Amino acid sequence: MSSQHAAHLDRTFELAEQGLGGVAPRPSVGAVVVSEGVIIGEGITEPRPGRHAEPIALAAAGDKTRGATLYCSLEPHAFQGVAPPCTEAIIAAGITTVVSPIEDPNPSVSGNGFRQLKAAGIEVVRSATNQQIRRAELLIEGFTHHLNTRRPLVTLKLATSLDGKIATRTGDSQWITNSSSRSRVHEMRRQTDALITGIGTVLTDKPRLTARDSDGNPTGRPLLRVVVDTHGRIPADARLLQEPGEVLWVVGEGIDVTAPTDSTSIQKAGLIDGKINLAEVIDELGTRGLHTAMIEAGAGLAGAFIEANLIDKVSAFIAPKFIGGTEAPGPLAGTGISDIGEALTLENLTHTVIDGDILVEGYVLKVD
Amino acid sequence: MSSQHAAHLDRTFELAEQGLGGVAPRPSVGAVVVSEGVIIGEGITEPRPGRHAEPIALAAAGDKTRGATLYCSLEPHAFQGVAPPCTEAIIAAGITTVVSPIEDPNPSVSGNGFRQLKAAGIEVVRSATNQQIRRAELLIEGFTHHLNTRRPLVTLKLATSLDGKIATRTGDSQWITNSSSRSRVHEMRRQTDALITGIGTVLTDKPRLTARDSDGNPTGRPLLRVVVDTHGRIPADARLLQEPGEVLWVVGEGIDVTAPTDSTSIQKAGLIDGKINLAEVIDELGTRGLHTAMIEAGAGLAGAFIEANLIDKVSAFIAPKFIGGTEAPGPLAGTGISDIGEALTLENLTHTVIDGDILVEGYVLKVD
Ligand SMILES: NC(=O)c1ccc[n+]([C@@H]2O[C@H](COP(=O)([O-])OP(=O)(O)OC[C@H]3O[C@@H](n4cnc5c(N)ncnc54)[C@H](OP(=O)(O)O)[C@@H]3O)[C@@H](O)[C@H]2O)c1
Ligand SMILES: NC(=O)c1ccc[n+]([C@@H]2O[C@H](COP(=O)([O-])OP(=O)(O)OC[C@H]3O[C@@H](n4cnc5c(N)ncnc54)[C@H](OP(=O)(O)O)[C@@H]3O)[C@@H](O)[C@H]2O)c1
Repeated sequence: MSSQHAAHLDRTFELAEQGLGGVAPRPSVGAVVVSEGVIIGEGITEPRPGRHAEPIALAAAGDKTRGATLYCSLEPHAFQGVAPPCTEAIIAAGITTVVSPIEDPNPSVSGNGFRQLKAAGIEVVRSATNQQIRRAELLIEGFTHHLNTRRPLVTLKLATSLDGKIATRTGDSQWITNSSSRSRVHEMRRQTDALITGIGTVLTDKPRLTARDSDGNPTGRPLLRVVVDTHGRIPADARLLQEPGEVLWVVGEGIDVTAPTDSTSIQKAGLIDGKINLAEVIDELGTRGLHTAMIEAGAGLAGAFIEANLIDKVSAFIAPKFIGGTEAPGPLAGTGISDIGEALTLENLTHTVIDGDILVEGYVLKVD
Repeated sequence: MSSQHAAHLDRTFELAEQGLGGVAPRPSVGAVVVSEGVIIGEGITEPRPGRHAEPIALAAAGDKTRGATLYCSLEPHAFQGVAPPCTEAIIAAGITTVVSPIEDPNPSVSGNGFRQLKAAGIEVVRSATNQQIRRAELLIEGFTHHLNTRRPLVTLKLATSLDGKIATRTGDSQWITNSSSRSRVHEMRRQTDALITGIGTVLTDKPRLTARDSDGNPTGRPLLRVVVDTHGRIPADARLLQEPGEVLWVVGEGIDVTAPTDSTSIQKAGLIDGKINLAEVIDELGTRGLHTAMIEAGAGLAGAFIEANLIDKVSAFIAPKFIGGTEAPGPLAGTGISDIGEALTLENLTHTVIDGDILVEGYVLKVD
């Protein structure tokens, strides 16, 4: 593909990335209208009941869309949903070429958008580099995962020292990783639909669990914050209750709690061995149409999620320091495996050096 | 520098790397004689009382050295030691150009080799890329460290899962890292002068502690294997005693042991809190003129070396798996720090992906 095509397609990915977080059940899409080599309109998917990326970009381009090229990070949809079909808007605008790297992952509509555009005489350019295809797929991985499983893609975030500790023996954990890694975590929070933590972390760290920039200002849409809390122990003055955005308070069935704020909702979940059945938490998020959830919890809940086999992806930040000590906690409590062969293994790995910390990311190899 | 110069210099680094391990107190040097663009002789430093790299390369080039160029990974030495000055051999051979990236790190002789060559009318080419200079320095880092401290450069090797475990709760540890990482460890063993372990590992794993290739055949010169064993518990039939090469058995003062083999030597060391004073072990290796030592031990000894502040460099292999469990051991036993700010930190980091495992290497930031 021409380098012009490539650059405009990359721009759609940037836009789609900006739109990640809180737009589910829609996938985040980026769209760009180009006329005579110049970008004349851009769009990012809005949350329901807003518009899709393509009509936004077309509207921004005004009356110059006739004969122009539309780039979008995902195949435009061709059916009437909450939003009208994007294909119709594209055809009506007089676009002559559409450049897009991947089909909609939903098998029942996949390819229909491209077919409808072609039927209307629009040239559909599907050439993209492997790297661009991977990037386009990564941007909708939560959407695709939800489509296949009805659950969000669940990412476990860890931050450890080189000797695998998340705090010192006295509990000091601020900060193990460097400030660039911590910014990256806030960026990951911004891009996720839900953040899950345990009551242990809420009581100990009093976190806000919001996505913030380096000045402490909120970024992105408020995400759903989930607290797994069998006995309903969130204090009424907990810091996370003061922040904008919904809190989902998951307590055990039979536990009587009342919502401390208007933006707190309560889920009563079944128990396994006296603790929340975590599968029910993930199912609830799936039912809400959320695509992605990130777990930032202590060893108790993180270990339980691993042992319940509910983790899909791992983002492990490792700082080049040693904490040492038999008493200092590791990232996962619980029983653990007995034979190395049983170890939960990651695949499709990426390794990113962040100012000397290393971020290891991968997907849990599912063995059924 | 010309790409021809660069390629020949790189060849001297390869040769020097082949020579690492067991050549101390000499630094491992690589030398190449080039005539009309063609390599006509190569040399690698031999252990005492053998020859240095330069005369070996010159001898290999035979009667074609007149007018030729000599490349060497380190400044040729100009003084009479166990070996005669290399500069004299170079001058006598009629070499007209010497290409070498770095001076001898010993301040009392540094630069003398180059000066002597120039005085004899030989052109000395010092241009090298920063990467080549770093590589040349890395090859002699143990030599330089010993020059400055009279101790070997001590590297702690670790192999952990992503959650910082070195074994499962039942003690299964074979294998956490992949076979490419394990080959790399054997290559690191080949390049080191001494390998240090604890009696815990000797009794549990019954290791041979030798450098071997993937077929299990020994590589390189036999290295010194050091067992830190306060009470003298190495069994007479221990597997490491059957292998070629010296074993240094470090026992507490007052412990009465006799060498089980001719190649076993005994060091009696002072005790701190009832265990070997590890500084005495490192001092003994320094006194023997060894440049590099690698620690491959269990959490007990590894943690003790960290807490005694005797580690200079760390090579941490991390496999993308989870072992989990509060009972599974981490890499460092002991007390550990209480405040994150006290954490021992690594600098000058490198990160190498090895078939999905990640090798984090760095130098302990010394704060005095
Ligand atoms: N370095 C990091 O990345 C990081 C991140 C977050 C937290 N932390 C540290 O982690 C520490 C807190 O650790 P923690 O383990 O106490 O907190 P946690 O993992 O956040 O919460 C654990 C609690 O969750 C509740 N829970 C409900 N259902 C559960 C289930 N199925 N399995 C397990 N737990 C369940 C349990 O309390 P109930 O039985 O009362 O429900 C349990 O005690 C803090 O010191 C914090 O600083 C570190
Ligand atoms: N994953 C890996 O990279 C790796 C590598 C090696 C071993 N391992 C595992 O580690 C386990 C063995 O661990 P370990 O801790 O028992 O063995 P270790 O670290 O090899 O040896 C510890 C022993 O060294 C002796 N020692 C002497 N002076 C010491 C001092 N100043 N400080 C601390 N110890 C001193 C102590 O016994 P005395 O008091 O009797 O002298 C101590 O029990 C094995 O299961 C093995 O598989 C893992």
